Amino acid sequence: MMTEVIVLNGGSSSGKSGIVRCLQAVLPNPWLALGTDTLVDMMPASMQASDTGIEFAPDGQVIVGPEFRILEAAWIEGVCAMARAGARVIVDEVFLGGTDSQQRWQKALRDLQVLWVGVHCDSAVAAGREIARGDRVIGMAASQANVVHRGVVYDVEVDTTHTESMECARAIAAHVR
Amino acid sequence: MMTEVIVLNGGSSSGKSGIVRCLQAVLPNPWLALGTDTLVDMMPASMQASDTGIEFAPDGQVIVGPEFRILEAAWIEGVCAMARAGARVIVDEVFLGGTDSQQRWQKALRDLQVLWVGVHCDSAVAAGREIARGDRVIGMAASQANVVHRGVVYDVEVDTTHTESMECARAIAAHVR
Amino acid sequence: MMTEVIVLNGGSSSGKSGIVRCLQAVLPNPWLALGTDTLVDMMPASMQASDTGIEFAPDGQVIVGPEFRILEAAWIEGVCAMARAGARVIVDEVFLGGTDSQQRWQKALRDLQVLWVGVHCDSAVAAGREIARGDRVIGMAASQANVVHRGVVYDVEVDTTHTESMECARAIAAHVR
Amino acid sequence: MMTEVIVLNGGSSSGKSGIVRCLQAVLPNPWLALGTDTLVDMMPASMQASDTGIEFAPDGQVIVGPEFRILEAAWIEGVCAMARAGARVIVDEVFLGGTDSQQRWQKALRDLQVLWVGVHCDSAVAAGREIARGDRVIGMAASQANVVHRGVVYDVEVDTTHTESMECARAIAAHVR
Repeated sequence: MMTEVIVLNGGSSSGKSGIVRCLQAVLPNPWLALGTDTLVDMMPASMQASDTGIEFAPDGQVIVGPEFRILEAAWIEGVCAMARAGARVIVDEVFLGGTDSQQRWQKALRDLQVLWVGVHCDSAVAAGREIARGDRVIGMAASQANVVHRGVVYDVEVDTTHTESMECARAIAAHVR
Repeated sequence: MMTEVIVLNGGSSSGKSGIVRCLQAVLPNPWLALGTDTLVDMMPASMQASDTGIEFAPDGQVIVGPEFRILEAAWIEGVCAMARAGARVIVDEVFLGGTDSQQRWQKALRDLQVLWVGVHCDSAVAAGREIARGDRVIGMAASQANVVHRGVVYDVEVDTTHTESMECARAIAAHVR
Repeated sequence: MMTEVIVLNGGSSSGKSGIVRCLQAVLPNPWLALGTDTLVDMMPASMQASDTGIEFAPDGQVIVGPEFRILEAAWIEGVCAMARAGARVIVDEVFLGGTDSQQRWQKALRDLQVLWVGVHCDSAVAAGREIARGDRVIGMAASQANVVHRGVVYDVEVDTTHTESMECARAIAAHVR
Repeated sequence: MMTEVIVLNGGSSSGKSGIVRCLQAVLPNPWLALGTDTLVDMMPASMQASDTGIEFAPDGQVIVGPEFRILEAAWIEGVCAMARAGARVIVDEVFLGGTDSQQRWQKALRDLQVLWVGVHCDSAVAAGREIARGDRVIGMAASQANVVHRGVVYDVEVDTTHTESMECARAIAAHVR
């Protein structure tokens, strides 16, 4: 069975986006890439920093409200529909709820062939990269590094602490059918 | 019947994105906003500037290849599925194929309540704004200004030549049920 | 005497950056463009949102501290030195202190031929454009629209409320020697 | 004598910008950061992709014309003037001309206390990071990796191939007086 969706899960600044771009470059067919950032960009500005939407606290905590969850659920359905309609899709996710987050996706992806990928990165290294990037709220990397993997089950796991994005992408690509 | 999808069509630098942000601000419920730019961002870098993907010629012409069309069709299905799953969706589109482009969307949106919006802008004014923005290939505004409206049917039409984004958004919002 | 520096002053979302890009396009010689945004980007992340640096309050107020002022003074000296060394320079500024801000620049620019340009925009229109842009703290446009022009003296004044960036740029260019 | 200017030289995608942001975070005083990218952003759009300005060839080669050199010289003077006026300055540079490029800066910086820093990165690793970033012309990393260091003399050298930005920044900071 051919892989239809690749889901990458990892904390902020763990290096997921870089791996995704390398995956798009090394995989023989064109794959669409989207993720949590795409969804947040699609939301009204007022949903950011609000109780019902998504809030990026000064300490790096991300708090997600009920309105965000409703739109997210519809967005997940849409992503699955793209895959069913024939687009190969790479999803770049942050499972803030660990195993619960994975189950939400598993339910929606039920009939699709999915490759689950865990992207690990040492918490202190991710925190340093967060400062080096300069475009994220400081603290997100540290607060998410381990939480997002709690109870999550993977087909492949990569660790960007000592491995380049391209090498991680090649390791993942080897599991894509 | 409640409006489920708003489709805005207009040439590059006609002011669609600004209207979309104002619409998200004035509409009472949260609406997701996405469009051609979202799709292009999701594609592999190699699909840009390629015969099979999308090419931005130095003169502002945009040429779309067969691989792009296949991914686009799946993406359109996904956007419609988001709306069916309960997300209100604003689509920011450039109908390079005029009436053909609209028919592609109409077919996919068949059972959904859609508000079709034409965003016009005088060609010379759009060309000036393209220079003022500084982030687009020069020539796109002029080459798309009229072509994209050929044979397209609308529920509302706005013209940004002499009207601010917010005022256009309010005019459109008045037609949203 | 040839114009060596063009200083544009106006509130946030008054349309200065668009005019600057159009000026660079219509002026016969190459001009370097820089401004407050360039300076803020150059500062350490920690200087933003700090008592001693620059703070963007949630209501759109911009508060500038003593450390920011020290770096700004050195930056102004540098900009003047670029002009003395032969680069034509366009400065895109927000005179939060009105006449005091202008005097700081006048003192530094003493021996240079300067064209002072006021960029006006109706407060409500600028506030609407701020929402349409989607990348600024809401409230800056309204809070700065009039304050920045208090006591400031100009060679040319343009108003973007009903005039396109390109047309404003042409009006300014007509005063450049 | 206190360090007044830090000049980092390295090829595209060697990791200079990340190191600069980390340096700004770890150094006890506020430092302004600027570089080649700042200069290119300041230039008219028409100077890019022109014979007289700067051209980014599809193969990653960067060609710099005479008009660019004139503006660059004035810009260098300005940067030195900022430092003389009391701002601590970090310069993020790509010495396309190797030793000639360094001499241009040395001449301008004559009376200032400078820390010269070489930022190395294995060519293949830099090329992989260029793909992972997704915002650079492919080929720049490989074409610049070694050329930019030819004949250049440093006070400190770091290598990002196996060392994080933050660690490199700490090594550099140890040489700042």
